[in-house]
Amino acid sequence: MPDKPATHPPRVVIVGGGFGGLNAALALRRSRVDITLIDRTNHHVFQPLLYEVATAGLSPADIAVPIRTILRRQRNCRVMMAEVLGVDLAARTVRMHSAEVPFDYLVLATGATHSYFGHTDWSAHALGLKTLDDATAMRAHLLASFERAEMESDPGERASLQSIVIVGGGPTGVELAGAVAELTRLTMVHDFRSIRPQDTRIILVEAGERLLVGFHPDLSASAKRALERMGVDVRLNARVEDIDDRSVLLSTGPVPCRTVLWAAGVKATAAAEWLGVPTDRQGRIPVSPRLEVPNAGGIFAIGDLAHLEQDGRPLPGIAPVARQQGAYVAKVIRARTEGRLEPEPFHYKSPPNLATVGRAFAVAEVGRMRIKGFIAWIVWLFVHILFLIDFKNRVVVMTQWAWRYFTFGKSARLILLHDISFSEAKAGSGNKKEGPAH
Amino acid sequence: MPDKPATHPPRVVIVGGGFGGLNAALALRRSRVDITLIDRTNHHVFQPLLYEVATAGLSPADIAVPIRTILRRQRNCRVMMAEVLGVDLAARTVRMHSAEVPFDYLVLATGATHSYFGHTDWSAHALGLKTLDDATAMRAHLLASFERAEMESDPGERASLQSIVIVGGGPTGVELAGAVAELTRLTMVHDFRSIRPQDTRIILVEAGERLLVGFHPDLSASAKRALERMGVDVRLNARVEDIDDRSVLLSTGPVPCRTVLWAAGVKATAAAEWLGVPTDRQGRIPVSPRLEVPNAGGIFAIGDLAHLEQDGRPLPGIAPVARQQGAYVAKVIRARTEGRLEPEPFHYKSPPNLATVGRAFAVAEVGRMRIKGFIAWIVWLFVHILFLIDFKNRVVVMTQWAWRYFTFGKSARLILLHDISFSEAKAGSGNKKEGPAH
Repeated sequence: MPDKPATHPPRVVIVGGGFGGLNAALALRRSRVDITLIDRTNHHVFQPLLYEVATAGLSPADIAVPIRTILRRQRNCRVMMAEVLGVDLAARTVRMHSAEVPFDYLVLATGATHSYFGHTDWSAHALGLKTLDDATAMRAHLLASFERAEMESDPGERASLQSIVIVGGGPTGVELAGAVAELTRLTMVHDFRSIRPQDTRIILVEAGERLLVGFHPDLSASAKRALERMGVDVRLNARVEDIDDRSVLLSTGPVPCRTVLWAAGVKATAAAEWLGVPTDRQGRIPVSPRLEVPNAGGIFAIGDLAHLEQDGRPLPGIAPVARQQGAYVAKVIRARTEGRLEPEPFHYKSPPNLATVGRAFAVAEVGRMRIKGFIAWIVWLFVHILFLIDFKNRVVVMTQWAWRYFTFGKSARLILLHDISFSEAKAGSGNKKEGPAH
Repeated sequence: MPDKPATHPPRVVIVGGGFGGLNAALALRRSRVDITLIDRTNHHVFQPLLYEVATAGLSPADIAVPIRTILRRQRNCRVMMAEVLGVDLAARTVRMHSAEVPFDYLVLATGATHSYFGHTDWSAHALGLKTLDDATAMRAHLLASFERAEMESDPGERASLQSIVIVGGGPTGVELAGAVAELTRLTMVHDFRSIRPQDTRIILVEAGERLLVGFHPDLSASAKRALERMGVDVRLNARVEDIDDRSVLLSTGPVPCRTVLWAAGVKATAAAEWLGVPTDRQGRIPVSPRLEVPNAGGIFAIGDLAHLEQDGRPLPGIAPVARQQGAYVAKVIRARTEGRLEPEPFHYKSPPNLATVGRAFAVAEVGRMRIKGFIAWIVWLFVHILFLIDFKNRVVVMTQWAWRYFTFGKSARLILLHDISFSEAKAGSGNKKEGPAH
């Protein structure tokens, strides 16, 4: 792309098509700027429902939309599917394999990836859940374990194939545990002849003293009870000391198992390395109150990539923070390009805090109100459906849920052979993804 | 699995969960037999709609259902997901990696795979369409070509990325050509900034003198005109002489292109080798009028794997033949196990012959009646939806089609990164699949 003369609109490059990057692009739709949005994949994923794809409740296309489709009418925005290799701070360009794009403003929204707390060897056995590829690989691995158990004659090995350890008691871990319980206790009960899926051991391991630490302790306790009613073995104050292909070693002893789902640590993606700036321990870039990277004029970092404190604590790596920050940087850029006063420093407004616990049970904090159970689940359902970006997806997802509610069926129980090989080969590669975290 | 005493019901092993194998299992549901159905994958695929998955109109889960789910209430049937390695004719067992299953009756329904007419090197560049894995790999390859074209600055290379050659003018080739035309001419028109998807060259190559040779010549001509109206370049009497990663050499000259879709040849899967029996040139096993493999008492071959002549011509490798043969062998097995008279030799009853040509146009032969256009498309639509095995799939597919009819949208335009690597690595492996052909 040739350098444009100065009379051309300012060039905004956004890296990452998750909640932060996409919202920044959309919020600039009426501005006189030239936007380029770059992502490794061709789709925006609704990450809060990735666990549904991983547990066969929804199909990938139900929670993902091509980024091009979302932005197709926005004539000031071009989309590129490419891997970013680096940023040239002197020339002010973003470098990819086959092209370079110059920028006046750069928004980095590359999100987070799994972190195994330094135990990179665990990545080969503990499947993470950040991308659609991760989700279909997890689904293939989960379903294939039951297929293998059905064929297995050794009782010990069979029990091991029917044991699932989920590491991390945050929303993703809790949602995975609930969905796996629903899959094994309700959906698959009549499907096998040699094994009973309902006997599957599901162990949810949390190092802290309660689940859902972002919620009020009462709700943490409700979530724990709800999971236990579904047969999930919740282990608090339990630390993972080692993971290999046959077992998980907990601080309380070893658990033989062939399936480990990782919902514990995340770290920011490598964008800080592109800029050569210091980061916090999770790899996040400390940003100014206007979300700018220090000493790098016109470069912003948002979402899971950014470290910004509010009320003395860093903002969490969740979708609403990324969304609000995306819209905010768009405002800053607009103010600068139009020579207007910059907006007040970024301030995060906390929306309802929600987590679902299996079938028809959720916990919710709306302001100071705390609700749990079926009503909270209805709130959860509608909030999630409303935030799905595509109208058709909303209809399809609602239909799938209604169907499942009455039939206990899960409709996407497919094992694709390359998903299996991916699940077996992938984790070692330290799978990275642009796009903010759940 | 231990040998059972003689008082136990006769053991029927079915290899392949496509139309033939699944129908055989279902037709034995009220019989006093012990059935084991073995398939490499965990799902039954509605192969006539694979082209829809390959062109992003439907999701894999819309046209596939776990075999276990279909058979979950059929207590006399056990399902195994495993690769069959061979048949021991002396011991009468089917051999897999980790198990052996004894049989009294064996039904081989392993279907067909791509055949490149001896040019095995073409398989690395010409993507076939027999399995869900094939379909998602084809989808990823197709969509990624447009992403690459959008990033490409060289006009020649860009044109090459926007050229698609489809080899084979049978129903699959015609349906793919129509669906690719719809995708590029209608769905994607607003999505790109550097390329115009509607300028994509779509070339459908057929060696014979008309498309859809199984239909009346008038309908062949209508299909050709319909495709040409959609901008497809139909080349009859054109032979493919070579394929590499940059072009297809036709008898009329070379065509630079980066995407070749293979809808030409198929050959039967390797089941004949398990038995050591002679085959016809396509690898099919010549069977008796009761679909039995000669000199191998109680072993049947059906669907794409079987060679049986009727009215002087071999039956075609299509879904209705496999379905009827599956039901027929069940009848033979039932007669033998119950000591009743065997049924009359197999006779194929031809159902309506249908093929769709892009959006809202199809050709149909119902008995001696020939119809084409919108009415034929409505017939095609309802026949396909009716034959989908799962009620929910019928609702979802109908919704997707209705949506697309009015919005021109295709909802499953996802590139998963492991689908791309699969599409680039796979074909070389001579991808085999159990399950009958389209």
